[in-house]
Amino acid sequence: MRGLLLCMLLNTFCSAKAQNTDSITIRRITNEIMRNGTAYENLRYLCKKIGPRLSGSPQAQKAVEATMDMLKKAGADTVYLQPCMVPHWVRGEKEQGYIQWGTPEKRNLNLCALGNTYGTGPKGIRSTLVEVKSFTQLDSLGKRGLTGKIVFFNFPMNPEYIETSRAYGESGGGRRKGPAEAARYGAIGVMVRSLASNPDDYPHTGVTTYNDSFPKIPAVAISTNDADWLSSQIAQKKPLTAYLRTTSTLLPDVLSYNVIGEIRGTEAPEQILTVGGHLDSWDLAEGAHDDGTGVVQSIEVIRVLKALGIRPKRTIRAVLFMNEENGGRGADAYLKQAKAASEQHLFALESDAGGFSPRGFSLEMPPAQRSIQRWASLFYPYGVYQLEPGGSGADIGPLRAIGTALAGLRPDSQRYFDVHHASTDTFETVSRRELHLGAAMMAAMMWLVSEYGL
Amino acid sequence: MRGLLLCMLLNTFCSAKAQNTDSITIRRITNEIMRNGTAYENLRYLCKKIGPRLSGSPQAQKAVEATMDMLKKAGADTVYLQPCMVPHWVRGEKEQGYIQWGTPEKRNLNLCALGNTYGTGPKGIRSTLVEVKSFTQLDSLGKRGLTGKIVFFNFPMNPEYIETSRAYGESGGGRRKGPAEAARYGAIGVMVRSLASNPDDYPHTGVTTYNDSFPKIPAVAISTNDADWLSSQIAQKKPLTAYLRTTSTLLPDVLSYNVIGEIRGTEAPEQILTVGGHLDSWDLAEGAHDDGTGVVQSIEVIRVLKALGIRPKRTIRAVLFMNEENGGRGADAYLKQAKAASEQHLFALESDAGGFSPRGFSLEMPPAQRSIQRWASLFYPYGVYQLEPGGSGADIGPLRAIGTALAGLRPDSQRYFDVHHASTDTFETVSRRELHLGAAMMAAMMWLVSEYGL
Repeated sequence: MRGLLLCMLLNTFCSAKAQNTDSITIRRITNEIMRNGTAYENLRYLCKKIGPRLSGSPQAQKAVEATMDMLKKAGADTVYLQPCMVPHWVRGEKEQGYIQWGTPEKRNLNLCALGNTYGTGPKGIRSTLVEVKSFTQLDSLGKRGLTGKIVFFNFPMNPEYIETSRAYGESGGGRRKGPAEAARYGAIGVMVRSLASNPDDYPHTGVTTYNDSFPKIPAVAISTNDADWLSSQIAQKKPLTAYLRTTSTLLPDVLSYNVIGEIRGTEAPEQILTVGGHLDSWDLAEGAHDDGTGVVQSIEVIRVLKALGIRPKRTIRAVLFMNEENGGRGADAYLKQAKAASEQHLFALESDAGGFSPRGFSLEMPPAQRSIQRWASLFYPYGVYQLEPGGSGADIGPLRAIGTALAGLRPDSQRYFDVHHASTDTFETVSRRELHLGAAMMAAMMWLVSEYGL
Repeated sequence: MRGLLLCMLLNTFCSAKAQNTDSITIRRITNEIMRNGTAYENLRYLCKKIGPRLSGSPQAQKAVEATMDMLKKAGADTVYLQPCMVPHWVRGEKEQGYIQWGTPEKRNLNLCALGNTYGTGPKGIRSTLVEVKSFTQLDSLGKRGLTGKIVFFNFPMNPEYIETSRAYGESGGGRRKGPAEAARYGAIGVMVRSLASNPDDYPHTGVTTYNDSFPKIPAVAISTNDADWLSSQIAQKKPLTAYLRTTSTLLPDVLSYNVIGEIRGTEAPEQILTVGGHLDSWDLAEGAHDDGTGVVQSIEVIRVLKALGIRPKRTIRAVLFMNEENGGRGADAYLKQAKAASEQHLFALESDAGGFSPRGFSLEMPPAQRSIQRWASLFYPYGVYQLEPGGSGADIGPLRAIGTALAGLRPDSQRYFDVHHASTDTFETVSRRELHLGAAMMAAMMWLVSEYGL
């Protein structure tokens, strides 16, 4: 009994001592990044010198080359490319769209084609507009109500959810599968209310997925202000005709790459810890928060460890994934290679929720592996207090198949859907300190897992 | 013993039940604000229709009138003005300043006069520039080193502090008392490095306080980029001459007002709970985060309770203080009236740290009164997790004298000193959701204190 007590006390003492040493390392990591971090200037380069980085575009290729250089400058032991074939969707000419209500009078809409959609052809399409507020309503309208029509999916994001990604998930069905579902009932086109948290005049794009059994009908996003206006017109029982024109098209797949830089572990180099974000972005904006920030933060994890001479016990690998937005082909290629080489993927962390002030990490792993939660007090002084179960990230998600413990950086979510997938996602909306603090917390997490495992 | 146990169980049960009812009320408050909040549009009006609101200016008077109307529209039972005499400082003509290094070549500086300073006269002043990195260094230079010189206080904000207000407090001495201290040693003018967290090209103003025993010498803030450049030039031992010209001056005090709107308590109306921010701002910007956001959030507290028909037991009073920036006269007037009328001021909450995502409340009260901490679980679902001892706010601070328990809304601080006291403090930098979430948390806190006291 006394032996047990002594043992427990000793254990507590040693653990407290370890945590104290750890807190000093995390403080060093954070100080270095808050003082000398390069993530912000790397992001400026990605946003301002390269710009939009849609998969298959020349800018995406430039981003591959530029981030290879950044990883080399950061001091990665090895930097290499991992090939993958990616969809090559092109928006074509600026989209046009307007509403008429039986008179020559028109009202133009702020709109853009959804990602991966096919165009209307050069003449555009014109038909009666039918508003739909749920899939149940869509089903009840059926072929009789929808054949030959243009469907307007008006699924507003619920402003009452404090975590905005919850509202995005819940209301995103209109964009993700609305065109496929409308085509099932003979509709000829789709307009989707943008997935934005606030009223604005910008269309927010995003990918949609067709069903091969039905026609691939053209689909666009319209701004939330336009959606509210349209809905109010329809509520007044005005018969509305919509016109849409997009020349977007999906070309054959092209070769692209994930960009990888790693620091080899000193004790268990075969155990791989991945930290990543995605290199591609939509074509409308600079892809600052989505996901330039995740890319430069991942590079910063490598840089800070090298700058401080901290040698991780396990291998830390920064992976800049290609094609998250409209295919996930980089993520697939990464898993495929991991399987082919029988790599041991212990842990992966993704930053793809914007470069805002970090508040926590969401943990996608069995409860037994959530030993990360024992580090809560190490993160708390930096405003990182949520270490809770939740989704991780689309790029690392496939690693689930090989049992990797996954985590996502969870930044403050209030502003994300103001800029997400819209032309407003620019460098200027990123705060240097918020970006760097997020990078510091990612580096701290990667270092802790490299030191202690899970 | 069984009786005590029963009693404890009952207590726990009742307390749990009360917390559950409370969480429903707080959810209703938050939902109403996140869905229908008017704070953002009120802020747009303050920033875009009125603009800078320096004490004594016509815009400050317009802000008094506009916010009276807003409080009436919010449904306050009574709305009234509380007079106070305020300093009337005017910046005068656009400031000029440059550096020369023995040749006709010049480099202009981004600068502005500090608040409440006197000008240089129309001809400006010119002298050798002496950089000072601490007050100890200033003292050691003394009269021999400083008489007739212009002193450059270069006190950078420490980027390693996660809470930026800590760095502001620590490095703020140069601005707050630098001119008075330099005058003690015979200096003829002062340049202060702006109190900004990041490198930028904007001068950030702020008040300075003279010492009546020494000359009131002109003082300006220069941008952080200019400060870094100047420091690097001086490090190369270049003899630098600085030229400054400002025509700023302090005119006689003028009459102004605090704006007050209240909801009378149903059970203990004599117990007053104050919630506030400050109406005045610096003259360089729209005063969005400092402190338009605190003003419109305080008005929103009144609006939401009225909109939901929630009748507080104690009196809730929104106070929009005048002259926080360069005098605190509104705060003084509020205390004076409280004393004169023997008012019972139980609690006061201030929002004057920017309209960013809320993270907590700092509690400035004796430990016995920190019963607020028992509500932690009610705030946690909204990302508000810090209920810790700390400073409250400059406007409610004087209420300390009559034993009022004080608290400050603690929003995320990473971006505040990018815009603080500079022309960049504009409406566009405020997030609607962040602003409204802060207002909701303030309303929740005010309602809880109105319901339970402390």
